[in-house]
Amino acid sequence: MSSQESGSGPTVAIVGATGAVGSVMIEIMNARESVPWGEIRLIASPRSAGSTITVRGVEHTVVALSPEAFDGVDIAMFDVPDELSAEWAPVAVERGAIAVDNSGAFRMDPEVPLVVPEVNGSAATRRPKGIVANPNCTTLSMMAALGRLHEQFGLRELVVSSYQAASGSGQEGVDRLRAELDAVAGKQVGERAGDVSEAITAAGLSEDSPFKAPLALNVVPWCGSRKEDGWTSEELKVRNESRKILGLPDLRVSATCVRVPVLTTHSLAVHAKFEREVTVEQARRSFEQAPSIVLQDDPDGPDFPTPAGVVGAEPTYVGRIRQALDFPETLDFFVCGDNLRKGAALNTYEIAETLVEAS
Amino acid sequence: MSSQESGSGPTVAIVGATGAVGSVMIEIMNARESVPWGEIRLIASPRSAGSTITVRGVEHTVVALSPEAFDGVDIAMFDVPDELSAEWAPVAVERGAIAVDNSGAFRMDPEVPLVVPEVNGSAATRRPKGIVANPNCTTLSMMAALGRLHEQFGLRELVVSSYQAASGSGQEGVDRLRAELDAVAGKQVGERAGDVSEAITAAGLSEDSPFKAPLALNVVPWCGSRKEDGWTSEELKVRNESRKILGLPDLRVSATCVRVPVLTTHSLAVHAKFEREVTVEQARRSFEQAPSIVLQDDPDGPDFPTPAGVVGAEPTYVGRIRQALDFPETLDFFVCGDNLRKGAALNTYEIAETLVEAS
Repeated sequence: MSSQESGSGPTVAIVGATGAVGSVMIEIMNARESVPWGEIRLIASPRSAGSTITVRGVEHTVVALSPEAFDGVDIAMFDVPDELSAEWAPVAVERGAIAVDNSGAFRMDPEVPLVVPEVNGSAATRRPKGIVANPNCTTLSMMAALGRLHEQFGLRELVVSSYQAASGSGQEGVDRLRAELDAVAGKQVGERAGDVSEAITAAGLSEDSPFKAPLALNVVPWCGSRKEDGWTSEELKVRNESRKILGLPDLRVSATCVRVPVLTTHSLAVHAKFEREVTVEQARRSFEQAPSIVLQDDPDGPDFPTPAGVVGAEPTYVGRIRQALDFPETLDFFVCGDNLRKGAALNTYEIAETLVEAS
Repeated sequence: MSSQESGSGPTVAIVGATGAVGSVMIEIMNARESVPWGEIRLIASPRSAGSTITVRGVEHTVVALSPEAFDGVDIAMFDVPDELSAEWAPVAVERGAIAVDNSGAFRMDPEVPLVVPEVNGSAATRRPKGIVANPNCTTLSMMAALGRLHEQFGLRELVVSSYQAASGSGQEGVDRLRAELDAVAGKQVGERAGDVSEAITAAGLSEDSPFKAPLALNVVPWCGSRKEDGWTSEELKVRNESRKILGLPDLRVSATCVRVPVLTTHSLAVHAKFEREVTVEQARRSFEQAPSIVLQDDPDGPDFPTPAGVVGAEPTYVGRIRQALDFPETLDFFVCGDNLRKGAALNTYEIAETLVEAS
């Protein structure tokens, strides 16, 4: 790495620095001293260029996305839409950077590793395209827990239902849910879809929502775009990315992805079958020893993770661990992970840390 | 049936007539002319006795629960807490009535049939205790759809995650969720559990909630009470009641029950394995022919049921039907059913209709 060789720390770029995930990347960089970065470069659309953001006590000016913006960069962390990543991550690589990309553009590319550092960190060293991909936030929310159990007990099957937060659709999703909740609150608005829609329209909200139905007082069993045979893109990502991260190309997976009126933190109800027998006690011990997992599962009282209880936290929270009564070698459990942190910015940053450590 | 034999219609009693489910029973009785009831008797706690409610155009005075209140009653529909049902349903039977009970008191009693008329209606005729039980609302929400598929394809396994509405905890649950939503709306309240709790406390709400955690801006993976090995009562009901209704004592079931910030209508993500191969097309045809099911599943665009879209409706709505990609003979689908109607009052009333037809 050029700058590192010159004696100072490596140069890092955040592409999409002014977005919801980019902002959390900066927060994490401020909180973690693990890597003594040399230069920190903030890159965004020309519209945001020129604005200033303080990182590690120093004011930085945001620069516009351009080929030259990557000159001298060792690691470029991308959080931009798929099409922008597809175009610009290779440009960053051409200019000498390793691109760590949080879009969907490269995740299933066989020449791009899909990495969760505590699960398959070593995969980041094999990157023929110079690009390392960060998984989808829903998959990521359960991956630390599943990786841990897979290592010990051998994962065979997954049946997963998600309870996904509005911020999975970006700041637009957060703003929409807040506005919808404000529109129905304090008015004893009727609970039928028509009443909710009417209240939303009366409050001046546009019909153009990031969700396919009202989300206030509702859940929406549709995340992402329509794919073949009735599946959504999000459900197929859970299947295909889990297989790739765990190195299990034949893992059996069924997922149903549902948006819920929560602002941040995805939750998943997981039904996981293993090759070997696994007891609740063994699973608890395994989670207790994992630095990136918090076990919240008091068997003597109702204690469990909830998204509101987990938002802002770095670890994945696991609870409600039960031995399936009628399925051998199978556990049921509930997982909550902040979709903007471990689900996006934090894992991307941890990949960057891994790359620096390995260099 | 005494009154019927005397020439007029049978006498029906609603026990718990002033409660959330009792009120829906009266609504249904007003809307459906199917049974020409003779006398309609409204029974409630002494506190509510003396109040008046109009049923089928006639003003009725609510009478207090007492042994004499059941004299001359042919069918007594109960929606009261378990302990009251346990005490009073046998009293109603002693006085000559058939008790149709919507509490948990008798559901797993081998001498009490647990009935969903379109699935196992004939079971209502074998009732050695004179009591017929109505299933738990979560189980009921998926039972019409599962009963239908089981009849044709033979159900073997169920993995279910619920998205349960606040009104599953009665009017108290509805009031609590409304108050919590009002407390967090319009204020850009932070999304962490502490912030939400603080806003709830600041709004003067008691700490004594029917839910085990804040429900606004959250989901709560805990419904009912704690049972052995980390399971909740609600999760075991889904398993045990499904087995009993479908007559499949060895059916393999895993359920995770989660409360969501929805007022009314339970939703379930269902992963169901069958004995015989079943295609999405076969399942769709099967649902289309079922009078108590609405298929909402346009394969060419995002169309699907949501709780807000289903509340107030009598049928169960089914959508998102997909052939599991990695599990043979298995379908994934999403079901929404109004937990106060088909999940409670409507099914209880339909059992009463079945009893009248069979008499």
